[in-house]
Amino acid sequence: MGEIYVIKANGEKELFSEDKLRASIKRAGIPDSYSSRLISQIKEVLYPEIPTSIIYKHITNFLYGIPHSSGKYMLKQAIMDFGPSGYPFEKYIARILSYRGYRTEVDVIMQGRCITHEVDIVAENEHGKYLIECKFHNLPGKRTDAKVALYIHSRYEDIMLGEYRHEKRENCKMWLVTNTKCTTDALSYAQCSGMTVYSWGYPTQTSLQHLIEDRKLYPVTCLSTLSKKQKDLLLSNDIVICQDLLHKKEILERLNLSHQERRKVLSETEELVG
Amino acid sequence: MGEIYVIKANGEKELFSEDKLRASIKRAGIPDSYSSRLISQIKEVLYPEIPTSIIYKHITNFLYGIPHSSGKYMLKQAIMDFGPSGYPFEKYIARILSYRGYRTEVDVIMQGRCITHEVDIVAENEHGKYLIECKFHNLPGKRTDAKVALYIHSRYEDIMLGEYRHEKRENCKMWLVTNTKCTTDALSYAQCSGMTVYSWGYPTQTSLQHLIEDRKLYPVTCLSTLSKKQKDLLLSNDIVICQDLLHKKEILERLNLSHQERRKVLSETEELVG
Repeated sequence: MGEIYVIKANGEKELFSEDKLRASIKRAGIPDSYSSRLISQIKEVLYPEIPTSIIYKHITNFLYGIPHSSGKYMLKQAIMDFGPSGYPFEKYIARILSYRGYRTEVDVIMQGRCITHEVDIVAENEHGKYLIECKFHNLPGKRTDAKVALYIHSRYEDIMLGEYRHEKRENCKMWLVTNTKCTTDALSYAQCSGMTVYSWGYPTQTSLQHLIEDRKLYPVTCLSTLSKKQKDLLLSNDIVICQDLLHKKEILERLNLSHQERRKVLSETEELVG
Repeated sequence: MGEIYVIKANGEKELFSEDKLRASIKRAGIPDSYSSRLISQIKEVLYPEIPTSIIYKHITNFLYGIPHSSGKYMLKQAIMDFGPSGYPFEKYIARILSYRGYRTEVDVIMQGRCITHEVDIVAENEHGKYLIECKFHNLPGKRTDAKVALYIHSRYEDIMLGEYRHEKRENCKMWLVTNTKCTTDALSYAQCSGMTVYSWGYPTQTSLQHLIEDRKLYPVTCLSTLSKKQKDLLLSNDIVICQDLLHKKEILERLNLSHQERRKVLSETEELVG
């Protein structure tokens, strides 16, 4: 096979890399025994300038044959499925943080020196306070740009001169959490101005995926045993994380499931978080 | 006639006011002799919750009967017609400023402390330098919100610590120029942070309309004697303001106009700027 270029979600061309594909399959926790078979299947269907979305589709189709493995692989899509509004994403991030030991509050009105601000999440732990802006995009390839980092910084400065004027600056941090990538400028500005970013794939060791996969804090939209309507019902009842479903099994009664379907949902959930 | 509510472009309800209608007609420079007839015609076609866009449509239809009067009245729409991209709006604002004595440069790359920025317009006169962000919306009712004012402020601060670090802050100002309205928060933040705003109708005495109407700096999209295609051709040749058309009459030769059409265009232009 000669060199094949793929078209990424943001429209950029990139040389197809078997190593990248293998890394992505590995990250999804798919057993090595399946990996080689999957890779050779994918290589058979490649064509010049194939969109990566088509490659993902082939992977998902393949994964449907392996019980309970597609949920993790499709994490990125599962988060997109929170849309169109950004509100479930905020709730999801807040739940991740509370599983990781932070006290959190969502949609907090805070008084700045100039104006009042609605801060998506205020989190707190023994190290300090965190003002968090969640930037949700429901289209892949849409990057969070420098303007977002710039307005978060002004908002932070306004709050530090308003409601937080008696707080120590070193104890109050600002974070940007986004489900897509950031532009290089957005990352440079964030780093330079002391803002922490958790985005798709960045920073490598503590990215949003890492925050999720490390503790298996998968969203309920990962579950292949529920319909879109059933997932929406869970989200509107503040059940955004799979663990929550296991702690509040009674919510499943509202989903109109047969005994067998219910068992399947619980089994997939336990598999994901186990 | 009982009380009638109208629906504004942003979706808000407002009590119909004959005084407001009269003021708006007057501002458009329509002779008083026509004003009363127009107002009674409008009052006849009012119905509960009539969109203001329908009222404007009636006014425009009426105005087509009065030579060379609709252009000015439709100023807001003419600016929207710059869209979909915001680039002609930037060029238009830069031209307005040069007619008012500023030296201007469009799309200037400037080095901040953290990142480089693309500033829409850098203007200069004997009083100082102005970093100008143009915010163009091509839908009425879409307001410029506080996030815009917030990111402009961070950008300004970054440039004042970068490329402008040797400039005196009192000589360097930031402006926000927009063709729609701003939210209350955007205006409060701008005022509090020392940012000048020129928006639709604000500030009352020196708003964007004022900057235009006071010196009759109407955009070429105001001209009813040109087609959309012909206007686009002018814009892409950097002819955005009616005065420019009078100074560069040779550009009209590219528009494929008959001798009579050409005369009509020039006559409407002279009427507008005269």
